[in-house]
Amino acid sequence: MPRTMLTRDRELRARAARVIPGGMYGHQNAAALPEAYPQYFSRAEGCRLWDSDGNEYIDYVCGFGTNLLGYRHPEVERAAAEQAPRGDCMTGPAPCIVELAERFVDLVEHASWALFCKNGTDATTWCVTISRAHSGKRKVLRARGAYHGSAPWCTPRPDGVLPEDREHQILYDYNDVASLDAAVESAGDDLAAILVSPLRHDAFRDMELPDPAFARRARELCDQASAVLILDEVRTGLRLAYGCSWEALGVRPDLSAWGKAIANGYPLSAVAGSEPLRDAARRVYGTGSFWFAAVPMAASQATLEIAKRDGVAERIQRLGEKLREGIAAQAKSHGIGVRQTGPAQMPMILFDEDIERARGNFWTSEAIKRGVYLHPWHNMFVCAAHTEADIARTLEVTEEAFAALSNQISRGYLSR
Amino acid sequence: MPRTMLTRDRELRARAARVIPGGMYGHQNAAALPEAYPQYFSRAEGCRLWDSDGNEYIDYVCGFGTNLLGYRHPEVERAAAEQAPRGDCMTGPAPCIVELAERFVDLVEHASWALFCKNGTDATTWCVTISRAHSGKRKVLRARGAYHGSAPWCTPRPDGVLPEDREHQILYDYNDVASLDAAVESAGDDLAAILVSPLRHDAFRDMELPDPAFARRARELCDQASAVLILDEVRTGLRLAYGCSWEALGVRPDLSAWGKAIANGYPLSAVAGSEPLRDAARRVYGTGSFWFAAVPMAASQATLEIAKRDGVAERIQRLGEKLREGIAAQAKSHGIGVRQTGPAQMPMILFDEDIERARGNFWTSEAIKRGVYLHPWHNMFVCAAHTEADIARTLEVTEEAFAALSNQISRGYLSR
Repeated sequence: MPRTMLTRDRELRARAARVIPGGMYGHQNAAALPEAYPQYFSRAEGCRLWDSDGNEYIDYVCGFGTNLLGYRHPEVERAAAEQAPRGDCMTGPAPCIVELAERFVDLVEHASWALFCKNGTDATTWCVTISRAHSGKRKVLRARGAYHGSAPWCTPRPDGVLPEDREHQILYDYNDVASLDAAVESAGDDLAAILVSPLRHDAFRDMELPDPAFARRARELCDQASAVLILDEVRTGLRLAYGCSWEALGVRPDLSAWGKAIANGYPLSAVAGSEPLRDAARRVYGTGSFWFAAVPMAASQATLEIAKRDGVAERIQRLGEKLREGIAAQAKSHGIGVRQTGPAQMPMILFDEDIERARGNFWTSEAIKRGVYLHPWHNMFVCAAHTEADIARTLEVTEEAFAALSNQISRGYLSR
Repeated sequence: MPRTMLTRDRELRARAARVIPGGMYGHQNAAALPEAYPQYFSRAEGCRLWDSDGNEYIDYVCGFGTNLLGYRHPEVERAAAEQAPRGDCMTGPAPCIVELAERFVDLVEHASWALFCKNGTDATTWCVTISRAHSGKRKVLRARGAYHGSAPWCTPRPDGVLPEDREHQILYDYNDVASLDAAVESAGDDLAAILVSPLRHDAFRDMELPDPAFARRARELCDQASAVLILDEVRTGLRLAYGCSWEALGVRPDLSAWGKAIANGYPLSAVAGSEPLRDAARRVYGTGSFWFAAVPMAASQATLEIAKRDGVAERIQRLGEKLREGIAAQAKSHGIGVRQTGPAQMPMILFDEDIERARGNFWTSEAIKRGVYLHPWHNMFVCAAHTEADIARTLEVTEEAFAALSNQISRGYLSR
């Protein structure tokens, strides 16, 4: 069925242009996407989205990672629905905060305690503050170009940010031991923490899996300087492993930041910490109006249990690999250079010779017109509700998109 | 019915002590309250809470202001339940974000646009960043002791915070025109914004309504310096007025921060801004994993509509006045000095001659043992689900608490 025109979407955008600066904001602003993308969605179920004009999509962005088990997963919804009449945002927490903290400590290998908040940025900011309170030192190292949130200390855009908001930060290059060594060197005896993502997942560029030597060196440098190793699992959490994803490399952080998928779309983020950090975590004041709300915590308990029970990380890896293999074969048969990087369950697809991202934009536009929501320059997310049939249907669509792209290229468009 | 022992509460606290630093954190940490207070709640409905041992309370903290219409208000729950199957946290926003932004612009007198986030701290931080982006200047003035959130730039506790996190902030004294003038003077030609709460609601001290001359002076100083007036309505919003609460003083801010009550307990905060700030708001990057979730927005639409339709601010003011008059009469009859300050719908009750808050702690402990949850040192909140009968029952309890306190004092305790 051909896609309906995005009539209502355009009407909503026109109304939004009057009452929302720029018409929309943040990472869900469709103005940063090709024209064929809808801005608004009127329904979500499993791995599917419907835009406000009723068009259906197989969704590979999955709420930017918040959807792990499928939108409206029945068991998660049931856990939330059972907690709701018992109380959500109250004058104090519900007992489930204790159960959830116990579960986190059980799941996350380095953790002996946990704290809960709302935004991923809350979690990364809290980690940085705790590391400074613990060490009594100031310098925090982070990777050039890495995303750790939208607060002034880490937002990717400079507007409204003062140099002082980023004082005592030193940048290193991801996976580059020499650059990390140099950053530690320049911190002198003032190193509070190394903040690092489990893998490189910057927008607009190829993802990079962690070099084990880099991960081990980060741990070693922290140990030598009595500094804190902070692992930002906000984007990766539960998709690669059920605890910290660097466990596979034999590297344990002191603090880890969690968010996105941990409550399958209910608003919750978390900090997990090892024993020596407990006192600093107790002293640093962190709080928010909705941080103790019980419904997201009940949803998180269910999510953590289901993810492990159902082997979700392994499932989405298999599905992601099937998608990746199919796309690689299609690209090859069309003679179009495509780079697929990062873990298969968090696909990133970028095109060779892609001047101003024209090929990626064209290809993903062809896909979205045919009911598959891919992202042209941000890593994507597979969820447990994707099926083999969804992957097969997706590959039919991407084949058509490659054919259309190949046709454009052969006619001299989208090339140098 | 006498209160059950807090057996389960104590068990939960013991378990929490192992997996949560300090046993609990932030503003909902009961360790900061007298021993008689429960930490955990197993149910909330209307204006009532039940602790994990089954004891029932009339709640005057109301989720620290997040509960405006009553916990589980049927119409708000219905609006949320209707949105949920249509999608909550998706790959893009739902149409209701546009409707909600329109409603905010309609409600908030100075606003021509709105943005939505999760924490009150998100909203105040965003306001500060927007004001710097707009003005190209750095200095932000805020009142000594005022609470605007828990991020490093504003948290009330120093641990883990660097001097640089608070660089370019200048403190003034609330309601003190001379002190505000001096702060502006010291900002020189670098004044970005004056951040101010609609009234003084610092913990541990008497609240102060705004002096109209102070409010007008803040506006005038911003106009003179082309600086931004930011009104932090997070705690006050919808309890004093349906738009900005300084409208009654004839003073309009350029930016206002909202949170807590705006979705009756669903996690949502907001920034509203006037036209000249639109471009800066567009340029500043603000986002979060759950900021576009539709269910809290649907709940907020219902909350904003009901609050105005039902005259909630007037209702809770009347109820608050009834409570205040009753307590004043009781205190007088017992010859105990009590100060009740701030707007009646946000009661603050502090005791004279209260060495180490012993009187306040004793009196509120007597109340909680009898099923009334008052706060000994933080402002409280009346909600629309409180009834005349609840106030009457509360006053029976507070009379008994005053009698017990009076008895203690006459026996020589809780005095100098």
